[in-house]
Amino acid sequence: MSQNRYKLWMGPGTYCVPPELFALNRSRLAERLNSKEIPKKSVVLLQGGNEIPFNDTDTNYLFRQESYFMWTFGVLEEKCFGALDLDTRKSFLFVPRLPESYAVWMGPLYTLDDFKMKYKIDSVHYTDEIAEVLKNHGASVLLTLKGINSDSGSESKEASFTGIESFQVNNALLFPEIADLRTVKTDLELDVIRYVVEVSSAAHRKVMRMARPGKTEYQCESEFLHYCYSVGGCRYVSYTCICGSGPNAAILHYGHPGAPNDRFIQDGDTLLFDMGANYMGFAADITCSFPANGTFTSMQRLIYEAVLKSNLAVMTNGKPGVLWTDMHLLANKVLLQELKNGGLLTGNVDEMVKAGLAAIFQPHGLGHLLGLDVHDVGGYLDNNPPRPKEPRGAEKLRTARVLQKNMVLTIEPGCYFIDPLLDSALADPKLAQFIIKEEIERFRGFGGIRIEDDVVVTENGIENLTKVPRTIQEIEDWISGKDDGKY
Amino acid sequence: MSQNRYKLWMGPGTYCVPPELFALNRSRLAERLNSKEIPKKSVVLLQGGNEIPFNDTDTNYLFRQESYFMWTFGVLEEKCFGALDLDTRKSFLFVPRLPESYAVWMGPLYTLDDFKMKYKIDSVHYTDEIAEVLKNHGASVLLTLKGINSDSGSESKEASFTGIESFQVNNALLFPEIADLRTVKTDLELDVIRYVVEVSSAAHRKVMRMARPGKTEYQCESEFLHYCYSVGGCRYVSYTCICGSGPNAAILHYGHPGAPNDRFIQDGDTLLFDMGANYMGFAADITCSFPANGTFTSMQRLIYEAVLKSNLAVMTNGKPGVLWTDMHLLANKVLLQELKNGGLLTGNVDEMVKAGLAAIFQPHGLGHLLGLDVHDVGGYLDNNPPRPKEPRGAEKLRTARVLQKNMVLTIEPGCYFIDPLLDSALADPKLAQFIIKEEIERFRGFGGIRIEDDVVVTENGIENLTKVPRTIQEIEDWISGKDDGKY
Repeated sequence: MSQNRYKLWMGPGTYCVPPELFALNRSRLAERLNSKEIPKKSVVLLQGGNEIPFNDTDTNYLFRQESYFMWTFGVLEEKCFGALDLDTRKSFLFVPRLPESYAVWMGPLYTLDDFKMKYKIDSVHYTDEIAEVLKNHGASVLLTLKGINSDSGSESKEASFTGIESFQVNNALLFPEIADLRTVKTDLELDVIRYVVEVSSAAHRKVMRMARPGKTEYQCESEFLHYCYSVGGCRYVSYTCICGSGPNAAILHYGHPGAPNDRFIQDGDTLLFDMGANYMGFAADITCSFPANGTFTSMQRLIYEAVLKSNLAVMTNGKPGVLWTDMHLLANKVLLQELKNGGLLTGNVDEMVKAGLAAIFQPHGLGHLLGLDVHDVGGYLDNNPPRPKEPRGAEKLRTARVLQKNMVLTIEPGCYFIDPLLDSALADPKLAQFIIKEEIERFRGFGGIRIEDDVVVTENGIENLTKVPRTIQEIEDWISGKDDGKY
Repeated sequence: MSQNRYKLWMGPGTYCVPPELFALNRSRLAERLNSKEIPKKSVVLLQGGNEIPFNDTDTNYLFRQESYFMWTFGVLEEKCFGALDLDTRKSFLFVPRLPESYAVWMGPLYTLDDFKMKYKIDSVHYTDEIAEVLKNHGASVLLTLKGINSDSGSESKEASFTGIESFQVNNALLFPEIADLRTVKTDLELDVIRYVVEVSSAAHRKVMRMARPGKTEYQCESEFLHYCYSVGGCRYVSYTCICGSGPNAAILHYGHPGAPNDRFIQDGDTLLFDMGANYMGFAADITCSFPANGTFTSMQRLIYEAVLKSNLAVMTNGKPGVLWTDMHLLANKVLLQELKNGGLLTGNVDEMVKAGLAAIFQPHGLGHLLGLDVHDVGGYLDNNPPRPKEPRGAEKLRTARVLQKNMVLTIEPGCYFIDPLLDSALADPKLAQFIIKEEIERFRGFGGIRIEDDVVVTENGIENLTKVPRTIQEIEDWISGKDDGKY
């Protein structure tokens, strides 16, 4: 048993997540749904996640809680259900009834009161009692979750239990409202996100000082993981670490099992490290790009400055009321203008954008919502702007929404030299007309630069939560051992 | 792209797994099946694993290959199939046909020839060609995998593809033979296992020196993970790390999401750290128990010596032809005798065993087969000794087999002070008669000791692959900074 038994906390030095965070989410959800036409005696019912075994074995992947359930109830254990009465706002948690013998293997079992104390849920029962408890409580309609995740195309897991057939079930009302609420963070949520972004920032700074020619990419990944866990109490990362060196920095999803960060870092390499910790479900997602040997070459300088200007343009212009698609377009234009200034491109930048040239250098969207999922939900709900078709590249955006106060997003423009895309551009007269071929050819094998910050939309602008060296001077100083205490 | 493109290798300093290892497994499988009555023109067909997303999101758990497929084909990528013609012994690999656009996100795509070169498979095709290729090859009967994993109770995933209905399928023949073959390791497999056990041993030694009062349990876990990955190239561990301190050392599956290694280590604590790296699928599984402050108390000394004697008794007596259940019984007897010598028990040891007292102190089995799964397969096949019923505790054994040369197992006796078990024993006159109550009560909250080694059965005995300080003197010396270079 740990001294943290009744806390969402990893001990001194780490952040204690208050259960009030989830109570506030429940209250927002009730308020939102009650403002709509919902059936009388409606109760929201969500099902949490289950542990997943490696294939047919008895060994499990390290459990990740389902995010809608986590957002609403803040419960870390598997195989639970949660319910929220929309009239009384009473909350219910249903936990699996474990045999006494589990205590031998899993430690002292939480009683129902333990769960109640830890998670501050009004009423805690066993999952085999759901039907009875909800019936006795007078629940008539269960609002369950059914909707498509617009990033994965997968459907949410709709709650189901023995006896559900004796209730009316409505699975249409809940999804759009809860997904929309998740896009705007409360101050309590922002505090956790600040924490996980700070831990991730510090870990990136540590990695910047240990990464160098002769190390292997995965040693940098390992350093990041170790810092986040041993210092920040973050047992998970939010996604598989991308640690691309040299040409691998142009592989957007590098680090996957078929390319597991296993290259030796060479002198002259650009490093692109995209890594983010996870704390109690909350995700960070940060990319730092820097020279392996600590000093930018003129080529690295050119591309880095271009991407940084693109990033800063969004940082300066983003605010409530602004369309994210416009920010994407702005970032594209700044990038192309800088590549033109640097002698890689020629012609009119607006025409380049119209022709789709931006997607050759940055085939991904500007950034995405961030929260309990690294690609957080609510990007394309029914009443939001639809996925754009123009300019080319914008269709990859994970949201096209109007920015609102307290949305948390990544700003992550990039510039990569990806052979098949360069080949296709050079073979397409509409694009090739803008490209100074011999200059572009010099950058084959260069890899790429991405500068990814985690930000929150404020009343009037954007606050950057990320605390890493960003200008060329800052990066070179940091790697050379200066500026301790600055971040 | 990495310089390891054509190798099962994480770069200099790590172990390069030869594809011949899997070719030899295929050859053993063909030989075994051909020695049975199998239909003519039979082809073994196995399906590899798929990546698993976190719930409905587009973010995946770090992929683990399915172990039967790995054993036979040695292929690390997801969504593959493999086939082995039992007449000609020709091997086939089927890989997913990825769109060209994947190259932008995943890096240069492997061609069929790349796969052929990397994995040394005779013939490589796309998965949409399985039916056609096998048909053209003259396959008549497909031998697919269907069987129950005796540790999880789950069924293996039987291969299935579009067009399988035009073949005769036999799912009865393959499972018992391949599962049985997996229990006996080849020298090529032993070399990988030696490597991953060495890396894990070195990581344990590192942790022994950094763990101390004031650290948190998970910081020890993090140190272990970091060493295994950054030094040994092991991106995975074989199971969730168990880092129990003080009373948590008595929780057999401590470290799970509900008890995530989050306790502060106290002066006087016993630490029980059960952690094992994984390299290219091959598992290590080692437990070290030691005092947090580096010096054994008399109580720790008593229990540690008892468990170590139990471990060494098996190490000395294990050899081909011996029943694993007899080794379990031997370990139990030595442990109870030592507890009796130490003044915790009284009476006749054989009678204690008969009454089931051993399972009060060691409620788990002596150890298990180890290989591509940490609880490796083949423990209870149809022609093996069945799961025992007596003495109490032995029913937890993951195998009751006769030891054979080149079986790899863990030897992991333990002694724990688990309140509900002590309570039940004290309340049961058949058990209570052996217990010196006031002595046992002193050990409440002590936690426990487990000493777990990874061993291989040799011609005449047992070889211990684990390289960690094991005697009390060795442990105290190591923690105090002596004996560098000894292991």
